Amino acid sequence: GLTLLDRRSDKRTDSKWLSKKQSHPTTVYILFSNLSPLVTLAGGIGSPQQPEVKLCRLYYKDVEQYMNQTEEGTLIFLGVELQFHMNLLAACNGSVLQEDEEDRLVAWFALSIDSASAEKFQQKHEDCYFLHPPMPALLQLPEKEAGVVAQARSVLAWHNRYRFCPTCGSATKIEEGGYKKSCLKEDCPSLQGVHNTSYPRVDPVVIMQVIHPDGNHCLLGRQKRFPPGMFTCLAGFVEPGERIEDAVRREVEEESGVKVGYVQYVSCQPWPMPSSLMIGCLAVAVSTEIKVDKNEIEDARWFTREQVMEVLNKGNQHSFFIPPSQAIAHQLIKHWIGMNA
Amino acid sequence: GLTLLDRRSDKRTDSKWLSKKQSHPTTVYILFSNLSPLVTLAGGIGSPQQPEVKLCRLYYKDVEQYMNQTEEGTLIFLGVELQFHMNLLAACNGSVLQEDEEDRLVAWFALSIDSASAEKFQQKHEDCYFLHPPMPALLQLPEKEAGVVAQARSVLAWHNRYRFCPTCGSATKIEEGGYKKSCLKEDCPSLQGVHNTSYPRVDPVVIMQVIHPDGNHCLLGRQKRFPPGMFTCLAGFVEPGERIEDAVRREVEEESGVKVGYVQYVSCQPWPMPSSLMIGCLAVAVSTEIKVDKNEIEDARWFTREQVMEVLNKGNQHSFFIPPSQAIAHQLIKHWIGMNA
Ligand SMILES: Nc1ncnc2c1ncn2[C@@H]1O[C@H](COP(=O)(O)O)[C@@H](O)[C@H]1O
Ligand SMILES: Nc1ncnc2c1ncn2[C@@H]1O[C@H](COP(=O)(O)O)[C@@H](O)[C@H]1O
Repeated sequence: GLTLLDRRSDKRTDSKWLSKKQSHPTTVYILFSNLSPLVTLAGGIGSPQQPEVKLCRLYYKDVEQYMNQTEEGTLIFLGVELQFHMNLLAACNGSVLQEDEEDRLVAWFALSIDSASAEKFQQKHEDCYFLHPPMPALLQLPEKEAGVVAQARSVLAWHNRYRFCPTCGSATKIEEGGYKKSCLKEDCPSLQGVHNTSYPRVDPVVIMQVIHPDGNHCLLGRQKRFPPGMFTCLAGFVEPGERIEDAVRREVEEESGVKVGYVQYVSCQPWPMPSSLMIGCLAVAVSTEIKVDKNEIEDARWFTREQVMEVLNKGNQHSFFIPPSQAIAHQLIKHWIGMNA
Repeated sequence: GLTLLDRRSDKRTDSKWLSKKQSHPTTVYILFSNLSPLVTLAGGIGSPQQPEVKLCRLYYKDVEQYMNQTEEGTLIFLGVELQFHMNLLAACNGSVLQEDEEDRLVAWFALSIDSASAEKFQQKHEDCYFLHPPMPALLQLPEKEAGVVAQARSVLAWHNRYRFCPTCGSATKIEEGGYKKSCLKEDCPSLQGVHNTSYPRVDPVVIMQVIHPDGNHCLLGRQKRFPPGMFTCLAGFVEPGERIEDAVRREVEEESGVKVGYVQYVSCQPWPMPSSLMIGCLAVAVSTEIKVDKNEIEDARWFTREQVMEVLNKGNQHSFFIPPSQAIAHQLIKHWIGMNA
């Protein structure tokens, strides 16, 4: 399994349970400052392996003094550890959990603190640092932890950017373990019925490996802001009222002038910059002439299967390179190389 | 093709082109009031066929007097007619369109008018009416028109609910043909860089046909608000930081207690209530015991392949029925019946 936590969304409305878990000694806290997670290097100095970036897992005693301290402090309930939860369920044979078993569930929270508190914290914990800039450093995290960070960072970014009620402009309050936000103006229309203004945003993005009609070339592009030599799959936001397949066709044609016919979903990846869901597809071109839209990308080219295999096997090939293996673009490219191979 | 329009997002920033098209005599307008589209019955009285609900296609002369009239009047550029555009491109052999050819592109706009104007309009056009309530009537529209309504209604619903800047609470102005919304406060942080607060929301939802481990039963559920006897696929919002496949597993377990293993994407459908993207999947259960979460759904049951085939072939089977063929749930159910048949 690639997930670390069971979100237990049913517990979000159980404020008694949540507050009990907040101060429970086994509860894990991950810390954020300006949307950057607090990490440490595993292995450390003198270790024979390449040091690995890992989330700092803190406890109530470590963060107690920073909680509810400032307006900017935001607390998000992330879920309970899955491994343990599953074992437990199996042991109970699916029966309802008893009080003391409930107690053994390890809850996780994300806590966002202001810059002053962050500085103070770091002075006390010298082996920890805030992963900044988060991109592309986020890709260095172990896959399971990346999922937790994606969840926490997306919700925190939403609170950060959606402080006021978009329907009436009033202040809001945070509810349901951080997953809901309600307008404080009593007669606001957003309080009647269910509205997406109260829930975090998830922006679907299509990202596609475009295959040449001959099956032996793929289309990769680059934006100006990329490191020199990096090429990757084309991508773009899904628009309102649009199907995934149509978004793929529109984006490829807009950015590169290439027309796409067949589209197939491959896999997806949450990407918390700030809260995208990258929907990865394979797309088969029905035209080959490239006309780059310079407003959107800097360059797009057909690469041969051999060129791509060389980059995959040997890394940076002078001429060009692709994103690291944790990125969905890398996986899509690899998926194509594996096809008809 | 299932799409009627080429969105031509490049034209959204071309205000000269947009305003020229607005008053062009061939430009098509579709009208909305309270997010309900204006429709008419094709075939009409005395026609031998079942009357068909169709969008009213209006022209500048029909809507001129309602434009920019009230604060609530919102205008969205939807795109240009695809059929014609394609023929044209073919004729030009891909070369850049000439002035007079540009002129022949048929643009579409959606116009939202206030209730008073809507009433006035209807008094003059007796054969037209606003499709209200929009759900499930929207499903009666021809597929191509449903796509245009999904696009228009999602963007209009966004303007309706997101009137104020969520970052600072100030008023906003509409830009880029209706697809962008900018804060009017000069020093608002939302004006630095690119933020999703300025762009319409698209909420990804998973909807899944859950198959019994024996391959010959499927899990369908119903909500209290459904018409009596209707059962359909389970569904739920994708959460921040969650993959599509994990959202399927979480929602099925939360709502029905059934555990899911293998998940496969099948197809998707935009659903403008107000702006969801329904991502349709096939999901294979690894457990069979149902424990309904009464907060989420009213009932969930395993139905046999025979029961489902009978409903598909003969419609309402006393005991139960499923959504109409235009709904993605219907297509997912049919897709399963076609498998291993
Ligand atoms: N973007 C969203 N829009 C509306 N409801 C949401 C959203 N995200 C999560 N929810 C939750 O989903 C519930 C409605 O789900 P449903 O029954 O599928 O319409 C609401 O009561 C919310 O708790
Ligand atoms: N939800 C969104 N968030 C940010 N940008 C968006 C969104 N929807 C559409 N856009 C547009 O996409 C552009 C950025 O695209 P990209 O280069 O893929 O990051 C922005 O300049 C916007 O015009």
